[in-house]
Amino acid sequence: MSRPGLLHLNAFLMGVGHHEAAWRLPQSDPYAHVDVAHYQNLARIAERGKLDSLFLADGPVLWDQVERRPSGTLEPTVLLTALAGVTERIGLIATASTTYNEPYNLARRFASLDLISGGRAGWNIVTTAGLDAARNFNLDHLPAHAERYERAAEFIDVSLKLWDSWDDEVILADKETGVWGDSDRIYPPAHAGRFYRVAGALNVPRSAQGHPLLVQAGSSENGRTFAAKYAEAVFTAHQTLTDAQEFYDDLKRRAAEHGRDPHHVKILPGIVPVIGDTEAQARELDAELNRLIRPEFALPGLAELLGVDVADLRLDAELPAHLPEEDELEGAKSRRTLVVNLGRRERLTVREIIARLGGGRGHLTFAGTPEQVADAITGWYDAGAADGFNIMPPVLPGSLEQFVDRVVPILQERGRFRTEYTGRTLREHYGLPRPANRNTAARQPTAARP
Amino acid sequence: MSRPGLLHLNAFLMGVGHHEAAWRLPQSDPYAHVDVAHYQNLARIAERGKLDSLFLADGPVLWDQVERRPSGTLEPTVLLTALAGVTERIGLIATASTTYNEPYNLARRFASLDLISGGRAGWNIVTTAGLDAARNFNLDHLPAHAERYERAAEFIDVSLKLWDSWDDEVILADKETGVWGDSDRIYPPAHAGRFYRVAGALNVPRSAQGHPLLVQAGSSENGRTFAAKYAEAVFTAHQTLTDAQEFYDDLKRRAAEHGRDPHHVKILPGIVPVIGDTEAQARELDAELNRLIRPEFALPGLAELLGVDVADLRLDAELPAHLPEEDELEGAKSRRTLVVNLGRRERLTVREIIARLGGGRGHLTFAGTPEQVADAITGWYDAGAADGFNIMPPVLPGSLEQFVDRVVPILQERGRFRTEYTGRTLREHYGLPRPANRNTAARQPTAARP
Repeated sequence: MSRPGLLHLNAFLMGVGHHEAAWRLPQSDPYAHVDVAHYQNLARIAERGKLDSLFLADGPVLWDQVERRPSGTLEPTVLLTALAGVTERIGLIATASTTYNEPYNLARRFASLDLISGGRAGWNIVTTAGLDAARNFNLDHLPAHAERYERAAEFIDVSLKLWDSWDDEVILADKETGVWGDSDRIYPPAHAGRFYRVAGALNVPRSAQGHPLLVQAGSSENGRTFAAKYAEAVFTAHQTLTDAQEFYDDLKRRAAEHGRDPHHVKILPGIVPVIGDTEAQARELDAELNRLIRPEFALPGLAELLGVDVADLRLDAELPAHLPEEDELEGAKSRRTLVVNLGRRERLTVREIIARLGGGRGHLTFAGTPEQVADAITGWYDAGAADGFNIMPPVLPGSLEQFVDRVVPILQERGRFRTEYTGRTLREHYGLPRPANRNTAARQPTAARP
Repeated sequence: MSRPGLLHLNAFLMGVGHHEAAWRLPQSDPYAHVDVAHYQNLARIAERGKLDSLFLADGPVLWDQVERRPSGTLEPTVLLTALAGVTERIGLIATASTTYNEPYNLARRFASLDLISGGRAGWNIVTTAGLDAARNFNLDHLPAHAERYERAAEFIDVSLKLWDSWDDEVILADKETGVWGDSDRIYPPAHAGRFYRVAGALNVPRSAQGHPLLVQAGSSENGRTFAAKYAEAVFTAHQTLTDAQEFYDDLKRRAAEHGRDPHHVKILPGIVPVIGDTEAQARELDAELNRLIRPEFALPGLAELLGVDVADLRLDAELPAHLPEEDELEGAKSRRTLVVNLGRRERLTVREIIARLGGGRGHLTFAGTPEQVADAITGWYDAGAADGFNIMPPVLPGSLEQFVDRVVPILQERGRFRTEYTGRTLREHYGLPRPANRNTAARQPTAARP
């Protein structure tokens, strides 16, 4: 039984693919991850598929050891601006940290991208786990998980105030009298909170979609609370339908408790589609990619996620019986729990866990024919586990091309995905209203002016 | 007598023109200052003229009252990325503040723009005067002028270390063995200074020009010291040839004292070219623009610059006899002195000062025919007052088109300006060498490796 409405699809772009060994395939360009032309090609492919949006992860730190995989990450608000120039409709979502930015600067950069792209910007809000990032910003320790989320909440409050600094009637442009704007229509935030004091108005007006879409991807208790209050789209990782349904129901319920319309929070689990002409061919590609992993390079990252020493993990044994609990960690809490549950449930060795994570870092890898991938997607959608999917191509550009050219047409034929863009802004693609300006709304009752 | 070598030209882009009343002209679009298409058009015009670079000013604050002129400023690193996409050669210089950014974030954003543009990025380093900016960043007071420059110096030291995090041989891309990079070729800054601690390597490799060009525009004592040590190009404002020559000689001497080649510091005074078919026509355009100024809107900014109250200034009187000295101010010191000297020297009323500043905010306005503008430019160049000019078109796009289509050909015919780009990077346009990686250079003596 199918649900009414169209599903939403986001293309999560990462270098030459989400699989950590993708760069070793003959067709992969091991320099492409810092080449703007590569991303422009990917953006055009995704837009050809009429996808809602594309998305870039980020952290202010050199990820991984450079031995392991192509390292280096162009700053996403800058890179997305380059992609805005070669696309017309697709949404553009960048990750940025609330722990290591100033609200005025970051809100402004997103507002600039939003104007430049004609209302297509989205911000994936992260609090940035990891001591290595903290040490690039004057700190010797990672701020505590709860404090990072408190800071994030205030950061978003300030950003919303900044984005609403201008109402839509500021500009008079009266050449005759020489009066360009009406300063009574400018609303400086005058924000003074626990973490931030921001006095003045933003120097960028509102965009076609009001302000950038707010996206969030943390699934811990703090993360869910935050998402329920602020997020308009949520990227999430689940290995089983049951887990995904539980998360979906929980987050929609929490959003309603915050007085929000649950339909205005779109939930998009990640899926790594390994596509072949036959199921056997898809499975062989998956196996080939996993054979190309060098597990010793992946061990340090896994150990850090679990909060143990590398020496505590043995490649051909299961996870240690005793591991730090989620509550004891200050890093990526929900990802840690997902990995531990995966290892315990399927009794995987560390080597097998690394292979399973190599493709999607905890996201669901699904190997099959285009028809089977389409079935998996509509299956979760119909079962109330998703409003759409965060597509994580294991190999780029190849797997994105396959998805767009072979899976999307099936979804379109079934009437489950758009055949043309009907809107121009990211918010329109996701079926979300343009938010009213809080200041203008507040002003209405006393709006009588000479 | 002409100096050998070609002069350098930078296009300083600002909304619909540097003249504050330009937006009131019939041909001006009063919404263009936040429209990416407007800037893309300007960038194409400047590149058609083979100019070395284009430049955007910036501040993290809503400048002016919105009554006065088109307000709002797209964030420059983002906007320049959009301009990189529609140009191939011209350099792209963005202003950014060392007082209100984190080195890791800002160095990374410039490095990203530098890679995306193929080595065309430049950074105009500012310390950001003004209490209104401070109040957008958790502060109740403007940090002192000297401290702002100390912070700036450390900021640049950190940025240079970050830009040299990767040497040019990091990437092995060995698909056979599965080793992508050589971490021995990564040099984390491990910086611990007075203002900043930055441990880890940048996550962006070096660009075609090594790292972004360093540009500076402060002319106070602190500003000159800073420029002599770090700047590769200097934007400066002078009303007289004598002042410009004094500055030129002083800065070249200071650079040499820092052990630098004085030719590697390019000095570019600003000029506002008001161009007409005849001199009378040019003067009439200048007068028309000045008539369109509403001086009461300009008074608060002038009062702030001078460190007095608005009530202390009378439009039809000269400047007050007693004004705070440069030493007593913490704002834009050298600009204040320029304005006071201009008023005193020519015995101008406040209204006249506002008219003179309305075009170029202290930069030299020159009204004349294309031939006369070309003469003025080569005259200052030959007199040892400039290595080129910072062109500040009073009306945009019109004055830039006139400059490119009518003045540049004269300079080319005289053999004083390039007729085609000979380089691809910004550094090549300015005749500057690609800087060696400090870490690789340091490594050479012990470079014997298995």
